[in-house]
Amino acid sequence: MLIGAAWYPEYHPEAQWDRDLSLMAAAGITTVRFAEFAWSQMEPEPGRFDTDWMARALDAFQRHRIQAVIGTPTATPPAWLAESDPTTLPVDDTGRRTGFGTRQHRCYNAPAYRERTRLIVEHLARRFGRHPALVAWQIDNEIGGELKACYCDICGAAFQRWLSGRYADITDLNRRWGTQFWSQTYLRFDQIPIPRKTAMQLMVKHNPSLMLEWMRFQSQVMVGYCHEQAAALRASTPAAIPILTNYDAFEWGENIDLRHMFSGLDLAGLDLYSQKDHEIAFYCDFMHDVKQQPFWFMEYGTGSPKLATELDAIAGSGHVDRLLFFKFRPFPWGQEQGTRELLTIMGTPGPNYHAIKEWTARHAAPSTHHIAAGTETSRPARRRVGVVYDFDSSWSRFLTGWSGVPQDLTYPRGLIDPVYKSLHDQGERARFVLRPEDLRDIELLLLPWTVIHDPALEDAVARHVAGGGSLLMTQDVFLKNRDNVFNETLPRLYRELLGCGADFLDHEPAGAHALVRETRAGAARIVVLGVKADLGDWTHWVRELLRKRV
Amino acid sequence: MLIGAAWYPEYHPEAQWDRDLSLMAAAGITTVRFAEFAWSQMEPEPGRFDTDWMARALDAFQRHRIQAVIGTPTATPPAWLAESDPTTLPVDDTGRRTGFGTRQHRCYNAPAYRERTRLIVEHLARRFGRHPALVAWQIDNEIGGELKACYCDICGAAFQRWLSGRYADITDLNRRWGTQFWSQTYLRFDQIPIPRKTAMQLMVKHNPSLMLEWMRFQSQVMVGYCHEQAAALRASTPAAIPILTNYDAFEWGENIDLRHMFSGLDLAGLDLYSQKDHEIAFYCDFMHDVKQQPFWFMEYGTGSPKLATELDAIAGSGHVDRLLFFKFRPFPWGQEQGTRELLTIMGTPGPNYHAIKEWTARHAAPSTHHIAAGTETSRPARRRVGVVYDFDSSWSRFLTGWSGVPQDLTYPRGLIDPVYKSLHDQGERARFVLRPEDLRDIELLLLPWTVIHDPALEDAVARHVAGGGSLLMTQDVFLKNRDNVFNETLPRLYRELLGCGADFLDHEPAGAHALVRETRAGAARIVVLGVKADLGDWTHWVRELLRKRV
Amino acid sequence: MLIGAAWYPEYHPEAQWDRDLSLMAAAGITTVRFAEFAWSQMEPEPGRFDTDWMARALDAFQRHRIQAVIGTPTATPPAWLAESDPTTLPVDDTGRRTGFGTRQHRCYNAPAYRERTRLIVEHLARRFGRHPALVAWQIDNEIGGELKACYCDICGAAFQRWLSGRYADITDLNRRWGTQFWSQTYLRFDQIPIPRKTAMQLMVKHNPSLMLEWMRFQSQVMVGYCHEQAAALRASTPAAIPILTNYDAFEWGENIDLRHMFSGLDLAGLDLYSQKDHEIAFYCDFMHDVKQQPFWFMEYGTGSPKLATELDAIAGSGHVDRLLFFKFRPFPWGQEQGTRELLTIMGTPGPNYHAIKEWTARHAAPSTHHIAAGTETSRPARRRVGVVYDFDSSWSRFLTGWSGVPQDLTYPRGLIDPVYKSLHDQGERARFVLRPEDLRDIELLLLPWTVIHDPALEDAVARHVAGGGSLLMTQDVFLKNRDNVFNETLPRLYRELLGCGADFLDHEPAGAHALVRETRAGAARIVVLGVKADLGDWTHWVRELLRKRV
Repeated sequence: MLIGAAWYPEYHPEAQWDRDLSLMAAAGITTVRFAEFAWSQMEPEPGRFDTDWMARALDAFQRHRIQAVIGTPTATPPAWLAESDPTTLPVDDTGRRTGFGTRQHRCYNAPAYRERTRLIVEHLARRFGRHPALVAWQIDNEIGGELKACYCDICGAAFQRWLSGRYADITDLNRRWGTQFWSQTYLRFDQIPIPRKTAMQLMVKHNPSLMLEWMRFQSQVMVGYCHEQAAALRASTPAAIPILTNYDAFEWGENIDLRHMFSGLDLAGLDLYSQKDHEIAFYCDFMHDVKQQPFWFMEYGTGSPKLATELDAIAGSGHVDRLLFFKFRPFPWGQEQGTRELLTIMGTPGPNYHAIKEWTARHAAPSTHHIAAGTETSRPARRRVGVVYDFDSSWSRFLTGWSGVPQDLTYPRGLIDPVYKSLHDQGERARFVLRPEDLRDIELLLLPWTVIHDPALEDAVARHVAGGGSLLMTQDVFLKNRDNVFNETLPRLYRELLGCGADFLDHEPAGAHALVRETRAGAARIVVLGVKADLGDWTHWVRELLRKRV
Repeated sequence: MLIGAAWYPEYHPEAQWDRDLSLMAAAGITTVRFAEFAWSQMEPEPGRFDTDWMARALDAFQRHRIQAVIGTPTATPPAWLAESDPTTLPVDDTGRRTGFGTRQHRCYNAPAYRERTRLIVEHLARRFGRHPALVAWQIDNEIGGELKACYCDICGAAFQRWLSGRYADITDLNRRWGTQFWSQTYLRFDQIPIPRKTAMQLMVKHNPSLMLEWMRFQSQVMVGYCHEQAAALRASTPAAIPILTNYDAFEWGENIDLRHMFSGLDLAGLDLYSQKDHEIAFYCDFMHDVKQQPFWFMEYGTGSPKLATELDAIAGSGHVDRLLFFKFRPFPWGQEQGTRELLTIMGTPGPNYHAIKEWTARHAAPSTHHIAAGTETSRPARRRVGVVYDFDSSWSRFLTGWSGVPQDLTYPRGLIDPVYKSLHDQGERARFVLRPEDLRDIELLLLPWTVIHDPALEDAVARHVAGGGSLLMTQDVFLKNRDNVFNETLPRLYRELLGCGADFLDHEPAGAHALVRETRAGAARIVVLGVKADLGDWTHWVRELLRKRV
Repeated sequence: MLIGAAWYPEYHPEAQWDRDLSLMAAAGITTVRFAEFAWSQMEPEPGRFDTDWMARALDAFQRHRIQAVIGTPTATPPAWLAESDPTTLPVDDTGRRTGFGTRQHRCYNAPAYRERTRLIVEHLARRFGRHPALVAWQIDNEIGGELKACYCDICGAAFQRWLSGRYADITDLNRRWGTQFWSQTYLRFDQIPIPRKTAMQLMVKHNPSLMLEWMRFQSQVMVGYCHEQAAALRASTPAAIPILTNYDAFEWGENIDLRHMFSGLDLAGLDLYSQKDHEIAFYCDFMHDVKQQPFWFMEYGTGSPKLATELDAIAGSGHVDRLLFFKFRPFPWGQEQGTRELLTIMGTPGPNYHAIKEWTARHAAPSTHHIAAGTETSRPARRRVGVVYDFDSSWSRFLTGWSGVPQDLTYPRGLIDPVYKSLHDQGERARFVLRPEDLRDIELLLLPWTVIHDPALEDAVARHVAGGGSLLMTQDVFLKNRDNVFNETLPRLYRELLGCGADFLDHEPAGAHALVRETRAGAARIVVLGVKADLGDWTHWVRELLRKRV
């Protein structure tokens, strides 16, 4: 695992570059990330590009044998763009347009924003795509972080058009969404509302079918925007240079289908600030499985008192090719100002600078050039437990409850605590099942809160059980269809594998450890838990179902 | 007590109607409620009515010997109305207009909404007012639920006009409201603000006199809207068919004067979801006393594990003629989607279907036709304790405190816990005193938090005490006049009955059990409690004052 | 200490004036405050003044030998002003303009508001500036209370102009604010945003340099508005009559630089509602030191059960010339309605009326005429402990953290609890160091959370230590410069006095009682604590450092 760090030439006097890079190299840091917030330095005025400083920085990196990840700066449009076209600024769910002054202040669907994105990205790709110091492109920064959805009229109209392409006609939409409920039948697609918060004394959420589609639409908009940048970069960049983006997975709730996002990119990238062992392990396994290849850990914090141990664990996962700290030097100004990263605000090495230096020295660092995009270089331990992760089901959970604000993070958080923690505590690792075809070569499948019915996944589960594999699931699995509507007939899982009927629904757990039902299907054991099963329950059943296999 | 259920032909394929109605009839369910959210099914486009499906449903009901409550669909205006006239959509207290997508998205004062209401209601009344399956009309659904007040300019102007009719002139208003305070003297009625939330760093509420008038105005607007529908229905409906509305009493805070609302209707209707014995009992007694006749329980939940016991208690109150469950079948889609009501999502009977079937079989159900509007058919147990309920005082409590948001629900909630609970725990029931003339034939009168002075009620209390009746009151009774302004002279209650002066005000309770003062007036005992008396205090004094009478 | 009370002739029938004033005089109350909310009584319509009632009131005061503080009524502009020019109403940080109906509904920068302010204040000054009953002018009421900042376009443009006067050019601003961070480089001053709340799903705060300047700007706007009134009053008022304003210090967070505000006035005024001994003592010492002269306690509550004890403590501080109760009579109507102050709502004396009467009788009241503005009449006990209070540092703390809303009140609240409380518990009083030159004649200096580096203060601290004075400071002192940007070189305090380098930064406290470092500089002892030191820690070190000096 190679070590890197974010370090911003655009933030520091050029006279300090060599000092900083020498310190970096001395610590075994071989990758830098920069430029992802530097739009106004690259294009100080509309159409006037000034990227000579980047060329000088890349040359400096090369002098110090440091490879560079260049970020596209699109998460921070300059003041002149907001000023010249306010429709590039996003609108919140009360209809208020944000002002300039922070970051992610962009409507992905605004034509002016997309055009300006294309111009700056093409400029960067043409000028630096073949620079020898370039090791990867990073698109934007933490897409879907601060801005999870824009509710402006442009987005509303795009949503309506997008819907019109997904339904045979408005009648089909009405039927599938059940718009007879509360008199919401639409005559035309352009009557469908942008799901802004209601403005009444008791807020009521929007139709759950509309809301799930809205979340899918937002994900697709962000993914599409990201892929458009990838195409522009690729046009001027050799294939050997990977293109990625850094996703701040789960920390703010899960709102992008990472399978789609990373399927159009060469590498998955993760930003994570955690010092919990099981959480770090979860993300290492999960982010690997998104593309089924090692990923790059694009941001990790510098403040841990046990940093070397954490690096050992991350490297030991076998899933991480590079890990970049955020950040080498603290920022004296701005919203992320502070006094200590790997260097202190005075420019002197801090305690964890030395910790990293020792760590890289201890590890025989491989050549910095053997890593190509998508190459599987690690030998992950065999993983005998599978865990299904389903984005639709996660989003459906967001929308549960009377409140109109999606804030039930049970699904993404629950996959870590208690589900993954119950595995980690027993020394198990998980293979994540993100697609039906991922379900193979495991002994025990965990199927928690997968409320949306996917027939192909159901078939794969049936094959797993037919092959003698055990199954540990919650009581709500597959109860809804892809329209976020409850099925009125029992899915095959219930009829064939569990051998139960409608009386199964909603029963309170009757047994110990949240048990709802325990049965066998041939050699396979199947256990169904209540949806509120806790860490003790999951730990008990994981142990039980793995023990019996010995 | 007849049993019914909400069941929506407009939500289900016509092919399932007979199956559902047969199951209903087999369970002894003899009333259905439907159509109250079906505006877009009734009038798919402006002015084009399509109610043949209702006719077929009513015929189906009749075939199964089931009586129907038809709801007017005005709580869910169709998308085409919001689209054609956005002023029909309500505005919140920050000035934001709500969008389409939920329910109760209507400004009661918007001319277009009232006109469209008239047309759809007249159509329904003309077509179905004499249908033999019709047993009652339900107006709208839970008026004052999600939308408690609209702050749009139409409503603001209506409020100003309404005020101008209630005061001799603007000088009279200034004098009564004390607008010399904080320089709020008005020169004209049209200067009086819509009491939207202030937009400063520390929010300050509006003048309490203005706010109490605003709450009265909102109540009158909703009541007026309801009564306008009642008149339109009555014009084409025989007098024997009662007209009601279903009020979701107290659950969201008390904002409609139920005396006014139900005085213009034939029956009171209640929606309640509670499994607390004393709360159910409270509502049964209270809703009876609003019109002093039995009421219809229009919505009750289906999920209780002790449903038969609850039905026994409700029927045993002697105050409920019909109880309708919400709902017979679960909705697979929409904001109220779920998997189990009396039937499951698969269409099979669930546990409480059977519980109801047994309950109806056990009770010799009376003929379904002997219930006429307003007929007193029950024999309520004698109630020797009276409890004053005063809407003005309740609203005045909302407005207490520095914050501008009315959220102090002490009054309506406090009537249940602790006041009514202290009675229920001792096996007592209450007669609610909603008007001065209701105060008769009781031994003990409870007068909690009745802060607004009503001279007629004061006279009735004096007569009660003169007749030897006991009185248990809080320390704040009658301290304000109808303008929500503190009286500067002591009301007669204090001077004559309690024999005290201004030194009485605001004292902390000095005795045990929150006692402020205990006195006698002839044979009567009078006890005054601090306003924060708790369940233990109320229980003690109720017992004490009832015991002494033995 | 003379006793007074707020009493409003404009709120009561003229027939009651003599009764009230007789009661006042009988209780030894020799000062009244009135008129500060009476704009619509003074100027019922634009330009038509009616202040004869004030003249009659002043004559009545004189008859009763009561001196009057007249308040300018500018915190409550009349309805006619809001109506004629809505730009006089302030806008909040979501861009919403407030409506009429409460108080402080004024944009200080709105030209129409300033013009109307000038006219009413000049009228008052000309008519009453030489009235023999006038003892002082009070400007406005609790400036910066409800309205802490206006975010309207007028204020935004004024902020941009103000900034343009404080920086050499936009390049200078960009450099000092570090706008290279997040691509926030500005081309012109008029691109700098009004720092309204961001409207995204995850709110991000604005640049901390911008925010500190915004807080300074708001303070200067309010101070400038106040001083403009002072000048208008002084033009027609003899110099012997002091001009003050009543600041509701700290209770709502600290947002005005009181040094600036009171440097342009003759007296400091305080509004405080507290019954905590150490809090009252804190304010007495602090408000004295703002101008280094006794102040007037303009509002104190009437409800305490131990009022006489509190009066003894306040008088005993030696810092208060006059204390006015708020208020003599309760208001029956309006947002501050109630039933008991010194009189009850019935007009009869309440318990604390008598308490005050006894208190004034017990104290040989000095003549009411010997108090002139700025005269030091008290003999405060020697104060051997100094506490630095720095407004910039306080505001910088507000802006800490990720959230955009300044709500970290650690600084102003922390000065009371735990810092001042640790002194008070040991019988010590503080001399507050609000300017470098205040630092003299003390043995121990407390320097908590003074994060903004002030070289002059640093010099004074060095002199204090060189003179053998002890120093007790937190770990974050002087880390930032006046731009709210972290220093990249160690201030002299660290290099010379503490003898430490960059390794000092951010260490967790290593010793007992939050100790980070303990050292000596000659005879002086210096102790550095972690920023989260609690009451126990402060108490321990204050005792330790004072004990050693014996």
